[in-house]
Amino acid sequence: MSKYNFLDDYSEGAHPRIIEALARTNMTQQTAYGNDEFSQDAREAIRNKIGADEATIHFVPSGTAANLLSIASCLRPHEAIIAASSAHIVMKETAAIEATGHKIITQPAVDGKLTPDKIRLAFDQNSIFAHQAKPKMVYISNATEIGTVYTRSELAAIAAICKSLDLLILMDGARLGAALASSETDMTLNDIYHLTDLFWIGGTKTGALIGEAVVIKDKSLGADFPYHMKQRGALLAKGRILGIQFSTLLQDDLFLHLARHANSTAAEISSSLVKMGFNLWAKTETNQVFPILPSALVQELQKEFDFYIWDRLCDGSLVVRVVTSWATELSKVRRFITMAEEWKAGSQEIAVLEKQKPVV
Amino acid sequence: MSKYNFLDDYSEGAHPRIIEALARTNMTQQTAYGNDEFSQDAREAIRNKIGADEATIHFVPSGTAANLLSIASCLRPHEAIIAASSAHIVMKETAAIEATGHKIITQPAVDGKLTPDKIRLAFDQNSIFAHQAKPKMVYISNATEIGTVYTRSELAAIAAICKSLDLLILMDGARLGAALASSETDMTLNDIYHLTDLFWIGGTKTGALIGEAVVIKDKSLGADFPYHMKQRGALLAKGRILGIQFSTLLQDDLFLHLARHANSTAAEISSSLVKMGFNLWAKTETNQVFPILPSALVQELQKEFDFYIWDRLCDGSLVVRVVTSWATELSKVRRFITMAEEWKAGSQEIAVLEKQKPVV
Amino acid sequence: MSKYNFLDDYSEGAHPRIIEALARTNMTQQTAYGNDEFSQDAREAIRNKIGADEATIHFVPSGTAANLLSIASCLRPHEAIIAASSAHIVMKETAAIEATGHKIITQPAVDGKLTPDKIRLAFDQNSIFAHQAKPKMVYISNATEIGTVYTRSELAAIAAICKSLDLLILMDGARLGAALASSETDMTLNDIYHLTDLFWIGGTKTGALIGEAVVIKDKSLGADFPYHMKQRGALLAKGRILGIQFSTLLQDDLFLHLARHANSTAAEISSSLVKMGFNLWAKTETNQVFPILPSALVQELQKEFDFYIWDRLCDGSLVVRVVTSWATELSKVRRFITMAEEWKAGSQEIAVLEKQKPVV
Amino acid sequence: MSKYNFLDDYSEGAHPRIIEALARTNMTQQTAYGNDEFSQDAREAIRNKIGADEATIHFVPSGTAANLLSIASCLRPHEAIIAASSAHIVMKETAAIEATGHKIITQPAVDGKLTPDKIRLAFDQNSIFAHQAKPKMVYISNATEIGTVYTRSELAAIAAICKSLDLLILMDGARLGAALASSETDMTLNDIYHLTDLFWIGGTKTGALIGEAVVIKDKSLGADFPYHMKQRGALLAKGRILGIQFSTLLQDDLFLHLARHANSTAAEISSSLVKMGFNLWAKTETNQVFPILPSALVQELQKEFDFYIWDRLCDGSLVVRVVTSWATELSKVRRFITMAEEWKAGSQEIAVLEKQKPVV
Repeated sequence: MSKYNFLDDYSEGAHPRIIEALARTNMTQQTAYGNDEFSQDAREAIRNKIGADEATIHFVPSGTAANLLSIASCLRPHEAIIAASSAHIVMKETAAIEATGHKIITQPAVDGKLTPDKIRLAFDQNSIFAHQAKPKMVYISNATEIGTVYTRSELAAIAAICKSLDLLILMDGARLGAALASSETDMTLNDIYHLTDLFWIGGTKTGALIGEAVVIKDKSLGADFPYHMKQRGALLAKGRILGIQFSTLLQDDLFLHLARHANSTAAEISSSLVKMGFNLWAKTETNQVFPILPSALVQELQKEFDFYIWDRLCDGSLVVRVVTSWATELSKVRRFITMAEEWKAGSQEIAVLEKQKPVV
Repeated sequence: MSKYNFLDDYSEGAHPRIIEALARTNMTQQTAYGNDEFSQDAREAIRNKIGADEATIHFVPSGTAANLLSIASCLRPHEAIIAASSAHIVMKETAAIEATGHKIITQPAVDGKLTPDKIRLAFDQNSIFAHQAKPKMVYISNATEIGTVYTRSELAAIAAICKSLDLLILMDGARLGAALASSETDMTLNDIYHLTDLFWIGGTKTGALIGEAVVIKDKSLGADFPYHMKQRGALLAKGRILGIQFSTLLQDDLFLHLARHANSTAAEISSSLVKMGFNLWAKTETNQVFPILPSALVQELQKEFDFYIWDRLCDGSLVVRVVTSWATELSKVRRFITMAEEWKAGSQEIAVLEKQKPVV
Repeated sequence: MSKYNFLDDYSEGAHPRIIEALARTNMTQQTAYGNDEFSQDAREAIRNKIGADEATIHFVPSGTAANLLSIASCLRPHEAIIAASSAHIVMKETAAIEATGHKIITQPAVDGKLTPDKIRLAFDQNSIFAHQAKPKMVYISNATEIGTVYTRSELAAIAAICKSLDLLILMDGARLGAALASSETDMTLNDIYHLTDLFWIGGTKTGALIGEAVVIKDKSLGADFPYHMKQRGALLAKGRILGIQFSTLLQDDLFLHLARHANSTAAEISSSLVKMGFNLWAKTETNQVFPILPSALVQELQKEFDFYIWDRLCDGSLVVRVVTSWATELSKVRRFITMAEEWKAGSQEIAVLEKQKPVV
Repeated sequence: MSKYNFLDDYSEGAHPRIIEALARTNMTQQTAYGNDEFSQDAREAIRNKIGADEATIHFVPSGTAANLLSIASCLRPHEAIIAASSAHIVMKETAAIEATGHKIITQPAVDGKLTPDKIRLAFDQNSIFAHQAKPKMVYISNATEIGTVYTRSELAAIAAICKSLDLLILMDGARLGAALASSETDMTLNDIYHLTDLFWIGGTKTGALIGEAVVIKDKSLGADFPYHMKQRGALLAKGRILGIQFSTLLQDDLFLHLARHANSTAAEISSSLVKMGFNLWAKTETNQVFPILPSALVQELQKEFDFYIWDRLCDGSLVVRVVTSWATELSKVRRFITMAEEWKAGSQEIAVLEKQKPVV
């Protein structure tokens, strides 16, 4: 890869302290399948953060596994999930949820988020007894797929409507680190534990090689969860590698520290582009930036950087997605901004020259 | 863990060269989801071994994932698998195959192995049109669950009957390293590729932290396989960690070298116990030893070692399972043998003394 | 039930000739599971209608069974269906399709119908390799859920785009009788056979007690279809009762005759209401009428009739659904119209009187 | 069909009173999907028989549907069923249970029946946490697949072990009529209701055209059951046809009367063959007879009768299955017996003649 990539937050390996921990503990014998000391340590650390001794915590290899396990272990065959149309489980998981037999009822998101109104609407539109799958769970992602975050009061409002409609809440935390580190939220892990039924903490996108931690409130569901993990191929023999990574990430708040780096580099790109006069397609609240850029600028940036073209607008401009991570190099961020500034300056010069052209 | 454990071949982390490779490549940016350079290298290395440029190879996080993906991607809903009653997918995978909708038709194994006769019998007993799931695939594991291995001619005979009955063959290679390294087989990776439809090479049990390589002959099945991986939660964002491990294992035949160490330490334990006069419950052909030991000796060994009690025989003696691995320490093997010898000597002395006792 | 009901087209039993046929053939012994003489006769009759000797035809007990069997037998686990948001499989089948593991990708319907443009859009929006289920089949219902019908050229256009995108076409024919009997279509059973991959002919809604006939073009899919039927609980031991019904319906075009009765009574209600000045929420092309009526008129009609309130509009008026059937009594149709006319006359009188009131 | 068939108990249509009831009620309008008056009447009649006002009862179109719905609605994905190896769900339902994601753990039957010992063994052999599907339900069929019946004390013993192991009990009653009408049992419907968690009463094999009644004890499971029915394609629009049939069968004990006819004709065939000196492969306790006959006699009987060859014994004799039904004609039963007697007499004569032959 000759270009620097802002494609995603999983292009590098792991934070060096994780590699170091893997090396340090490598030759000790450990009990298999998640019953190792490192996993126990990581569970303890998470329980401390959420202030809940009774929570069950299991580590799984991927976000898709975390989602499908959470849903399939909670729902009966006739029960459905409510989610935003833009939800990861709807758009980017190859029907992983449907493959476990469950329908996802969708509603358009507002700023990437589900709202109590949308949840009630989805519920009401799916209440014809026996002829419509019974809504039983609400799925939200935090940070959302477009990088926005839920505030404590937003989540509390969702929890209230869900309680009244007897719906469970699952929070997909693939980018929970970025959400918790966002200046736009007032939410803590403890809040999340208390306002949801299950949630998971993404390791892969916050500096781990692999691994997500599923946190489960219900005792009996938690106790049976490893059966589901094994059944779906998500119970690793060497569960120790998930344990050691989370244990490392939770020491000295490394997890939040890494997320903050991702968020602040994104903020720098975002605010710089805004300062140059470019609009954003979505608010920059975490580590994803969605600027609307002229096609020519995009071509220029693509000479040195990789990122996704997210959408093409009617006026020819492009929405691009720039993702930063725990590993994003500051020098690359600055180079990206500089290239944009220089292009901007150059294009303004041309515009001025154009204007000055004598009419023939 | 204060005792040394012979419970399994996945109690340690990875071979140090793997940890080293992870560290060395850690900060380079790589394309996600298995499209990284390391995975490409590992694929190339496997294709060289099997002498088949056209084979599709994908890396998945667990053996259960490898099995359920292989089966679910090949079969139609009404199609079934034939396997030995003792098969891993039957006994130890929490109905992972049934969870994808497929029935497993079982037949008793012979020395842990399926035979052409058993396959034909299973086929014939499940041929009532529309009222019995249609047999379409045969599952074999090599090494088997009790450590035995298929010879080339055994596999060729299975391939012949499967061809005549229009059955696919899947080989579960969780311990394929041990099988290939066994002195009891004449089979190569190339043979296996040509005599099966799909097979997988187990990394987890041969020195990797995680990862199994699924090798697929059919082009169209191979092309669609990543969809199945994503759908079941088995497509890792940082697929690079699977690639780098297999790439390392395949350099300088490290893979076979590690398997040989496991096999030779098992052979040493096995032959020593046989020399002491103990019987084996199953032949020792790879890295699993199943001696039949007196209960008192088992208690003695348990003071310093952990291993599974596999079965209790009518005469009170115990079948135990002793598993060695790429990481098994020779000093521990010797200590285990010495303890058995000393106990044996002591018990003979007692026996002699018992005999010498004057009848009162 | 004291009120006459226009709720649906399955409130009565079967056409008397069907009851008579059941009685007449009752005591003859027949081979079970669809291999009876009556089912063979019915298959022959359908093959004659579609002009295709090679078509495979199977009879199943319900429309949901017909849909889920058609889809589950055709698709691989990672393949998805494209359907209108208003499709029966989306809105009213309790996630029957998802329960077989498949995702439904939706697009808003145009007059209840899918269009080539919508199909292409759905395809394009779901083409991210491995991360989105692969579109492989298009589901359309004819008549649609709102009673409209596809013309031959509309279906041909869909067939063309599907061919170019390698998509199969399934036509849900729960109300195929009404569609074929509609004056708005120029399509024949023969056209449908040639322009789709599978379709089914609804018996339940056209005068049978139970039963739908699935017509399958692909030989190998057809041959294995009974396995799927048995597996999903849809293979009836006394398949004869499905055969005898379809055989009866296909004699002397009874099927079309019954559908025409349903359509013509619906047309009478529809045109009468339009004549009175009421608008329609959807075109009346088959046996479903969706008039927009004042709430007071709805209350009046509900004194003697049952029908569904479909929607409530902003101005307080109601969309109601009036469904006629093969069994609808003409006297009831007339009574319904008369009640509406009388209410209309009364309300106009009141309106006139209101206008004439002296302003106090 | 020129030969008279003893292949099964579903070769004829329905008892004439059912056809009559269908005709009589045909044109009344009824609420759809099982909410009709006839279904309510039938439910009331069943509740009276079992002495349980609170039981939930639903009618489904097939035995396979009854089984898969009962199991899929009760179990979580990781839970398994224990059944006899000869169970219908194991041998003759095309993996219908596995298609809902569940594993069936099998044990050899004793006289076609499961025993408390076998249940405990199955449970104990499947108790490795997380690596084996968790046994949660026991499936028994009554009458069994070979026509034997459970006594009250046998069922009570099973209920006791299931209670102690936290296992649910499902009784497949495809031939429950025959079981209740058997002289070998002392069990009533009331007993069955109290000793199981769910059971179903087979209509198809006891004189109905179609339909099985599922009886559910748990209120919440019962309340949600129609969702499962709809999802699996088993909720009929014209549920009335199931209701009217069960309602008719339950009047004046028609159901038991029909079952007794089937049992007594089977008993006549069985005892006559035994009198002639033939052995039985299984006890004749209901309407299935499994005599062991010489191949020549079988060929003779096949000239006028159809029945299944069940097994071929080493000595060349054949196990055949002769099934009688509510519709079995007495004259045919006598003809069958006479043919056997005549053949027997003829063969003895030949044997005598053979003996008398002078040795040349």
